[in-house]
Amino acid sequence: MPRARFITLEGGEGAGKSTQVRRLAARLEAAGQRVTITREPGGAPGAEAIRHLLVTGDVARWTPKAEMLLHFAAREDHLSRTIRPALERGDWVICDRFVDSTMAYQGFAQGLGPELVNELKEIVIGDDMPGLTLILDLPVETGLARAGSRGQGAEDRYERMDLRFHETLRQAFETIAKNEPERCVMVDASQTEDEVAEAIWAEVKPRLS
Amino acid sequence: MPRARFITLEGGEGAGKSTQVRRLAARLEAAGQRVTITREPGGAPGAEAIRHLLVTGDVARWTPKAEMLLHFAAREDHLSRTIRPALERGDWVICDRFVDSTMAYQGFAQGLGPELVNELKEIVIGDDMPGLTLILDLPVETGLARAGSRGQGAEDRYERMDLRFHETLRQAFETIAKNEPERCVMVDASQTEDEVAEAIWAEVKPRLS
Repeated sequence: MPRARFITLEGGEGAGKSTQVRRLAARLEAAGQRVTITREPGGAPGAEAIRHLLVTGDVARWTPKAEMLLHFAAREDHLSRTIRPALERGDWVICDRFVDSTMAYQGFAQGLGPELVNELKEIVIGDDMPGLTLILDLPVETGLARAGSRGQGAEDRYERMDLRFHETLRQAFETIAKNEPERCVMVDASQTEDEVAEAIWAEVKPRLS
Repeated sequence: MPRARFITLEGGEGAGKSTQVRRLAARLEAAGQRVTITREPGGAPGAEAIRHLLVTGDVARWTPKAEMLLHFAAREDHLSRTIRPALERGDWVICDRFVDSTMAYQGFAQGLGPELVNELKEIVIGDDMPGLTLILDLPVETGLARAGSRGQGAEDRYERMDLRFHETLRQAFETIAKNEPERCVMVDASQTEDEVAEAIWAEVKPRLS
């Protein structure tokens, strides 16, 4: 049973997720709603400490399996300390990346396979899946160019993975959207920021009532 | 299929595991064997970074599930970077704590239950279980008094958990030993250091030939 007020934004590097998370939150707040904005990996003190191990350092720092387990450890912390408490007090929760990123990055692009990721998904998330997932889709070169120009310092471990990795990632998000059409909506992120925000609001607004 | 040259030492706090790991290694080396000494959580650079998140800070820092996942993430790193390479070059591997500690601490004492720990054990360890596990058994008060007097600074998060926790832990190790008698041997750790070393050597020596 998905959580209706739990919305996740997914997609490759530089697709504009964090901008659109903020814009969607502002729009929900303007409509009188309470909103918790959060992100993965991270979103709670323990999970942010794990994030530091994941987004910095050598590309080959972790085996894909260790990386998947660290993402799920962070996610367990994030769900327990931030997401479930916010949903239980009636907030909307808008999260920049969630389990579909683990499926796309570790399950597909790093080759672990979907079964293993689904096994951990069941253990850690259970019934707390998002009610709506917006997948911001963009050609890989455009996304990496945008991500490279925003200058996020040391947190670039995933961006430094090669072009083929990012192509696989894009296809993985498409596959996820096709497999779960009742939860996932693809959004063309090559549009202007305003157009993307409109496309997202068109999906969320009907869920207000 | 367990790994014959892979030996783990288990038990509660202050049971003398690290001393006995060193003594066993010295004895195997004196018998002309190559030995890798290691420990959990840790034993590889990534796993040691995860260790820091586990053994320091507030007792309630992690949910039991997050804690279990962090231990298995560290274990995956440790197996990939240290244990399997050492076994493959023919070393004996002697490890201070391994998966039975996760079963005893998170599975039993923190209440996650054995099924969940076994699920992760299958994912992360598979066929690479130790050939011999020596469980150093000691009354809880004696162990905690010994552990408290050795002064290990900030790495005392588990020691600060309450007495009942440590009693459950001791019973858990007994249960594990009963369930897997072909792998596990209980050693009375209230004996002198020399006597414990002799009892351990009596188990390991026949495995040399």
